[in-house]
Order: sequence, then structure tokens, then C-alpha cells
Amino acid sequence: MSNEYYEYELTLDKILDTGIRTFPDKEIVYRDIRRYTFSSFSNSVKRLVTGLKKLGVKKGERIGVLDWDTDVYFHTYYGVPLSGAVLHTINLRYPLDLIVKTILHAEDKYLVVRDEFVPLIEKAKNIIPPGMKVITYSDNKEKVKSPISNADFWELIESNEPTEEFDVKENDMSTIFYTSGTTGEPKGVWFTHRKLFMHAMSVALTGTRSPFNLSPEDVYMILVPMFHVHQWGFPFVTFLAGTKYVLPGRYDYGFILKLMEKEGVTYSAMVPTILHLLLTHPDAPKYTHVFKKWKITIGGSALPEGLARKARELGITVTTGYGLSETCPVLSMGYYNNVAQKLDAEKKFSLQISTGVPIPLVQIRVVDPDTGKDKKPGEIGEIVVRSPWLTKEYYKNPEKTAQLWRGGWLHTGDLAYIDEYGYLHIVDRDKDAIKSGGEFIPSLLLEDAISLHPKVAQVAVVGVKDQKWGERPVAFIVAKEKVTEDELRQFMLGLTDQGRIQKWWIPDKFIFVDTLPLTSTNKIDKKVLREMAEKNK
Amino acid sequence: MSNEYYEYELTLDKILDTGIRTFPDKEIVYRDIRRYTFSSFSNSVKRLVTGLKKLGVKKGERIGVLDWDTDVYFHTYYGVPLSGAVLHTINLRYPLDLIVKTILHAEDKYLVVRDEFVPLIEKAKNIIPPGMKVITYSDNKEKVKSPISNADFWELIESNEPTEEFDVKENDMSTIFYTSGTTGEPKGVWFTHRKLFMHAMSVALTGTRSPFNLSPEDVYMILVPMFHVHQWGFPFVTFLAGTKYVLPGRYDYGFILKLMEKEGVTYSAMVPTILHLLLTHPDAPKYTHVFKKWKITIGGSALPEGLARKARELGITVTTGYGLSETCPVLSMGYYNNVAQKLDAEKKFSLQISTGVPIPLVQIRVVDPDTGKDKKPGEIGEIVVRSPWLTKEYYKNPEKTAQLWRGGWLHTGDLAYIDEYGYLHIVDRDKDAIKSGGEFIPSLLLEDAISLHPKVAQVAVVGVKDQKWGERPVAFIVAKEKVTEDELRQFMLGLTDQGRIQKWWIPDKFIFVDTLPLTSTNKIDKKVLREMAEKNK
Repeated sequence: MSNEYYEYELTLDKILDTGIRTFPDKEIVYRDIRRYTFSSFSNSVKRLVTGLKKLGVKKGERIGVLDWDTDVYFHTYYGVPLSGAVLHTINLRYPLDLIVKTILHAEDKYLVVRDEFVPLIEKAKNIIPPGMKVITYSDNKEKVKSPISNADFWELIESNEPTEEFDVKENDMSTIFYTSGTTGEPKGVWFTHRKLFMHAMSVALTGTRSPFNLSPEDVYMILVPMFHVHQWGFPFVTFLAGTKYVLPGRYDYGFILKLMEKEGVTYSAMVPTILHLLLTHPDAPKYTHVFKKWKITIGGSALPEGLARKARELGITVTTGYGLSETCPVLSMGYYNNVAQKLDAEKKFSLQISTGVPIPLVQIRVVDPDTGKDKKPGEIGEIVVRSPWLTKEYYKNPEKTAQLWRGGWLHTGDLAYIDEYGYLHIVDRDKDAIKSGGEFIPSLLLEDAISLHPKVAQVAVVGVKDQKWGERPVAFIVAKEKVTEDELRQFMLGLTDQGRIQKWWIPDKFIFVDTLPLTSTNKIDKKVLREMAEKNK
Repeated sequence: MSNEYYEYELTLDKILDTGIRTFPDKEIVYRDIRRYTFSSFSNSVKRLVTGLKKLGVKKGERIGVLDWDTDVYFHTYYGVPLSGAVLHTINLRYPLDLIVKTILHAEDKYLVVRDEFVPLIEKAKNIIPPGMKVITYSDNKEKVKSPISNADFWELIESNEPTEEFDVKENDMSTIFYTSGTTGEPKGVWFTHRKLFMHAMSVALTGTRSPFNLSPEDVYMILVPMFHVHQWGFPFVTFLAGTKYVLPGRYDYGFILKLMEKEGVTYSAMVPTILHLLLTHPDAPKYTHVFKKWKITIGGSALPEGLARKARELGITVTTGYGLSETCPVLSMGYYNNVAQKLDAEKKFSLQISTGVPIPLVQIRVVDPDTGKDKKPGEIGEIVVRSPWLTKEYYKNPEKTAQLWRGGWLHTGDLAYIDEYGYLHIVDRDKDAIKSGGEFIPSLLLEDAISLHPKVAQVAVVGVKDQKWGERPVAFIVAKEKVTEDELRQFMLGLTDQGRIQKWWIPDKFIFVDTLPLTSTNKIDKKVLREMAEKNK
């Protein structure tokens, strides 16, 4: 007899398996359209794996998905990697040009396309490789009639038996997607089964800490598009944490509020803009009882303190998360470390809405961008990181990869300091940095300060070129009610007297706008603002 | 420029690092003797690594430890594997013969020996390889005066600078120890950094679930000897969970109760016997306020329901854990899955003291021992498992390894069924095992020893149930000529003095019979003997 030892690989089937062993009846809910249990969903994923293989999907082939946050998308999060293929989550906010560019760059062999995006792909028919197969679907399971459709998604599931053994290894590529940053061509980042696995374990553990205190009794509705950095990893976390999962489809804020109430949602993650849109929705006052038991994590861009305080007043438990596309994404979260745990409520609150502390297994350093040497606590430097879930490279881009990974640490490009409590505070995304007279103006802190003015709804500060100082700040304001530039300047001078900001940080100009321009991922588009500011000089 | 991507290995330094990043001030307390913070302890471990390397320790070499649950032992849990060596946790409950046997089998090159065990090793001087180095220590840091001492443990730490980079990989062997299991010769099992790491992640996550509800505010005092299956993994879990850790040294139950009160202990794990000893201690009535906030996990042998109810009446939150030496150890725990969560308190209680549900990443099946086919819920079969933390083999024992790992599943030898709620219930431990006070008595070795008596023709030892110890051995004797129980007992005491057996192995009772009952395959029928012994109590 020989040693038939089983080498346990950290692959996504093990996450599914863990979920159904302990929480077989937990639900996955797609709007008011379909409900699954962990068990039935897992079975359905395993049928999809069989279906994809029958269709001809081979190991390592890329499958792009064009969809909102649906049950179909959720299937592909597990089913595509478990078929041995690679899930390409295509950014719906890109113009068609860029969508096609990323499809070609990733060399997608298959596309999964929701019916409403079929016309888009029909339009691009001539620039997409002829061998590509398109899998279409509609919510009501009616087959999509289109000359480009090669298969129906539901049929792949419903006409097949579940696969029980998966030909995958933990270091197999499982996902790929593109990140634009603020400027330039999108860069591809990719992740293995193992990376998604370890990320999910760590986020699940972090979620149990105060002030999240998440348990299997909680209900997730993640308001981050599924095409955006694995929906921050929560489709994997949920099976380890044993939480009910609610998918809102395309974002309709009135409907989302209704769905939150109906399904008892207690936890969400999102960018600040989405929180702003929900809290200012005309129906919001009807849902104060929902907000009272709502815990949220804000990430993707800095959380303005004014918005955080507004949420807190409604009884929402507000925390932050920090990470990048390159980092799977989560690096730090606003939970309490053993120092924060002992502080008073007000101080705790300021830390839970800072950039947070590293989650388990993440090593963070703040270093001098030039010398690479560690900065002391309180000193500003670049955040560099190591963890089990960072992208190995920018796909087919050795030059940018070498920049990203210099010295064996992933360079975030974000400037921050670590405070006396061990919390990170980002003062500026590298590229959005404003440097005046050789000194950085921490634009996020400055935005926070302006947001405290009662008549300010939203604010964004950018730097414009200045003969004398190199750069000077200009503020864009969305006002709640009429307010003058002079009122704001007086308010800022008051904050200066309080020691909250430096006098030389006060923007040279306040420009009033109706809305702020957004990037494809709903972040404020500072590139556009900079151009507007330059023209406005 | 090239891609300087950092491959993050799941090694024990990352666990230390995670602890000190988020919980730098959490304490490690050794009795009333010494206190560390996570930071100072981590620094101390890193000095030990330097010290061990200077002493000449090479990659893969084994270092045995003879100690109670001390701060020194805790240092070796991290320091030995991080030096590239392998920690051999030597079973103090073994007779000297077996201790030496395991040292020789593991090929230990170094021993770490607490002063009180130095005489034991001096006694064994002639049978221990001459090249072996012995590192000694005493609690008060005075150097141990002995001809066998080659180095002082504290000096290794205090005269060296901390190592910051560790030459270890996740698949390196990090620990080894011996399990006697049911019978005969001890078998070696070993674990890698990665296995300890994944085990700790999963146990940490499980601990946050109801009814444990453990958080960084909890204080662990694990009452499982550190020579026993990694103290169930908690020395690693604690740095991920961010909990204070209290080490009781040699078990003195009055002192333990005092220490629990003083340090605010809220969580412990132990075998049933230890719980029994604590609850029946004369001082116990003074500590009802301590018991009220105490959460415990009982494992190692079956938890008698009477004892569980007694603990519950005192306000203790009682749960169970299940695992083996071969499995790192934890496989399942008595937490609530989504079915149990909805049940009433009484039913929940019965499930939390059952064999529990698998913890994350553990795959458990109950199969027919002959055919290997899955049993239906409610049907009894053998528990077989897969997880990321199972031993790859019995060290240098391919035959037993092949039995352990047949068909790609680790065979526990335990018979159980899965109930309608998804909980495991063990109905019979590996049939012939005798487990007394949480420790196996190797029945074959004991039978061998008894058979040495010139008047003994045949002998068979079985376990009978015991209120205090769980089980106690009873011997059935077929005599060659007249012999008394007292003669046999005196003979056994002689063997104890020779280091051949432990005093507590000596059977409580010797029953004389004309013949031993046989099974259909002519093996001694221990089932019948057990019934006879129970009637004879």
C-alpha cells in the first residue's frame, strides 16, 4: 500500500464547500427575482462548470462578463474559475472603445453578456475576434435572439449534471480585470484561487471585530459593482462568514432602500458617492429604522468627514476600508485595534473613519518615496505592502510591473502617515497630490474641513499650476443652499484659528458646480476637475 | 528593471507580525513570574532565533523540549520553527523509556530542558547520542549546574540581536511529536508552517461564532499541556485573534483558579478531567464569579453530560472540540450552524456538547469502514477527513501511513453519525483505546509489561468508565500458577521505577479468568471484556 495523502489546495471549491457544510440554508437573493440557498447555489455552480466544459472551455482561457450585480454574475465568480478558466470582470463604465481594448488584451475566448448589453457587443462585432463565443441570458430565462449569441447561460446550468471534482490548483489564474487609475491606459491585474482564498479568510476574520461585529446573523448587500475588484471580495467572504447575500442588480436607489428593508440588510460596502446618493434619496426618510441597524464600510476614495457624521447621526455604524485593484483589494479597515478599544467614543469614531489598520496577514510600511527608508510615526511617506493576495504583475506590462514591485514591496502610490494609535491616514493619492511651495497640501484633509460647512453638500479640491508656488489648491463645491466664496473663506479662516488646517491650504478659488464629474468607478474625476480649473484660471 | 514580486509564504513569522501590528500591547502572562506584550515577546523570539543559529542549529534539525506550560515553551513554539529547525514537543507523561525512544526516533539534535527535568535526562545520559546539545533553564534565570548542560536558554535570548528575515518556507517541517494512539509504539506525526497557519486561521474564525463569541477582549488560558498537539493550536491562534494569553506552568488547580481571577481569564480549552478537577477543587466555591464569565471547549475525550450540566449550572458556557494528534488537531467544534441557531436553548446546549460541526475548510465524511461508501445521516460509520492541516504521514512508518491515508482520506478510526442538524456524534472512539485524564494509555505496551510477570500466562487490558478520569484500565489475567493482585501491583511498581511504564497506567483492578473470550477471527474480544469489567465495578 502507498501513501495516498491528499494535498489540500486553497481553491474556490473549498470555500463553497465550507459554506454549504455549516450554512446550507443561508440565502442568496437576487432582487425580487430569484432566491437560492447556499446548497442550491453551489449545486447550480457545479452544473455551470459541466456546461462550460461541454461548451469547450479549456484551462486558462479567459471568459469576460458584462453584467450588473446579478445572480448570473455571482455564478461566474465561482463557476468560471472552477472550470479552470479565468473570470474577466469587464468594466461597464468604460466607453465601448476601452471595453473592446481590454477584451482583446485579456484575449477573452468567451463572453457572458446580459441581454441589455447584447446591442453593445453587436455594435463591436467587427472588432471582436471571429472565434469568440458569446453566452447570453435574460433575467426571465427567455433565450436572447441575436446573431452573436452562441449559447444560453441558463441552459448551460439546467441541462447538465454537477461536476464534483475540479481540475484546478491554488496557483492557477482565476480572475483578471483592468484598472485605469486616474490617467492613461488600463492595466490588467490578475489573481489566483489562493489569493482570493486567503483574502476572503482575512476579511471574514476582520469582519468579526468591533465595531463591525459581523456574525452569521448579518445580511450583506454589497453596493460595489461586481466588475469592480471582486466586489471587494465579499462573494467569497460570505460563504466563509455564513451570511445571507443580497444582490441589487442595476443600482436603483429607491429600489435598493426597499430591498434593504425587505431582506433585513445589516451590512454594506460602497464608495462615498453611493452613500451620499442613498442618504439624499427622497425616500431615505422612510428608512430610518433600516439605517439604525446598518453597518457600512466605505472605500474606493476618501470618506469626507461631513458625510461620515451625517451617516452616524442616522445611527449607521460607519467604517472605512482601504485597498487598490492591485491588492485584491483589502489592505486595511477601520476596526479597533487594542489601543483604539480603550479610547472614548469620539476618538474611536475618528479612527474607524481613518484609513484603518492592516487586516490580518497584511504588512504595511510607510516609506520615503525616494530612499525607500521607513518613515517615523506621524511622518508622511508612501504606503508599500506585502500580503498573500497581491497581483504578481500588470498583465503583459513588464515596465509598469517593475515600478509596482520595486524592492520586493508593492508600491501603492498613496501618501500617508501612521498615527500614534497605529492607524493609517492617507493624506493624498500620489497622482492627486497638491504640492505648494515644496510642501504637500493634504487635499483629503482639506476636503474634510470644507465639508464641515453646513451649506456644503460635496467638495473636491485639485491643484492648478501656479507660477510662484508650483501648485495651488482650487475647490469645487456642490452647495446645499446658496453660499458665497467669501463665507467659505471666512469659515476656513476660523478652522485655521482652531489649528485644524494651515492658512496656506485655503483654496485660491471656490468654483460652484451642480454636480461633480465621476470616473467609471463612481469616484470623483479629478482629472476633469483639474482641466476645468486650469481653464477657469 | 525586473519584477521583484514578493511571494508571501504562510510561515509563522507572519502570524507574529499580524499580532504585533494590531495588538502590540496585548499581554502574555506566565504565572506570577513574567509578563510580555505581543511586541516584547516577538522581539524575544527573534533573539532566540539568532541564538539558536549561533549555537549551530541547522535547517531541518529537530529540537526536543521537556517543559510545562511556560513562557520558555511558548518561545520555542515560534523560535524553533523560525530558526528553520523542527520543534519536537516531548510527552512528559511518557515513562523515560518512551521519552528516549521518541528522542531517538525523531533524531533530536538539541534538547531544551527545564531544570526540574534535568535529573531525568542525566539518568538517560548513556542512551542519548553523545553529539546532542542540551539547553537548560530555570524560572529565575539562574544557570542550571549540570554536566549535561551545554547552553542556557535565557542567554540565547539575552545576548543576541533579533533576526528580522527568516530562512523558512511554508512547506518546511515545523513540528513533530508522538502519539501512542490505541496501542503499541508511539507514532510520529509532523506539521509544516503552512498547516499550523491555516489551522490557526480557521480556529480563530470559528472562535468568533456563537456560543463562543470570542473577541480581542477575551483572555485565554489553555489548560492543555504544551507537549500535547500544539496546545490545540492556541499559541498560534492568539496572535491572530488578538487575545491575552495566560500560561499556568505546571498545573496546580488552586493556583490556576487564583490566576484565572487575577488575569481575568474568559476562555479555556481542556480535557474533561481537568474541568472535573477544577470544579471539585475545595477552593472552587470562592470563584463562582470567575466561572460565570468563563467559556470553555472540552476535547480529547468524550464530555460526560453530567459534567457538562454541572458546568452549565455554574454559568460556564460549555462547548466541545474534536480532533486527533494526526489532525493538528481541530476538526470540529460545538458552535452553532444556521440550523442550530434557530433552535431552543436546551437543544442548542445538546448540540454544543456533541462532537460539533466541521470548522471552516474541514471536509468530513462518515463512511462504511469496509466499503468506503458514504453513510446516510443518522447511520454510524467511520469519520474520514480532509483539510489543509493533516499530517502527511506517520514519520518513518510507511505501513501505518498507508492505513491512515487510504483512498485519499485520513481515517480517524472514530465511529460516529451525523444528525439531522448536521452535527457529528461519536459513538465509539477507536475501539480499544484507553484514555485516562485525556492521555492515552498504550494498552499493548501495558499488556507487554504485565506479561513479563513469570506467573502470568495471558493478559488483556480494557478501559472502564470513570467519573474523574474518563476511563481507567482494568486487567484480565490468565495465570500460569496462583498469583495475587497485590503481587502483580508490586511488580508493576518495580517497572515504574525502571522507567518502563507510568505509575498511573497501573490497572485499578486485576480480574483473574480461566480463558479470554475470542472473536470470530480468534482475536481477544475486548468488547466482551469491557462488559465484564463494567459489571465487576
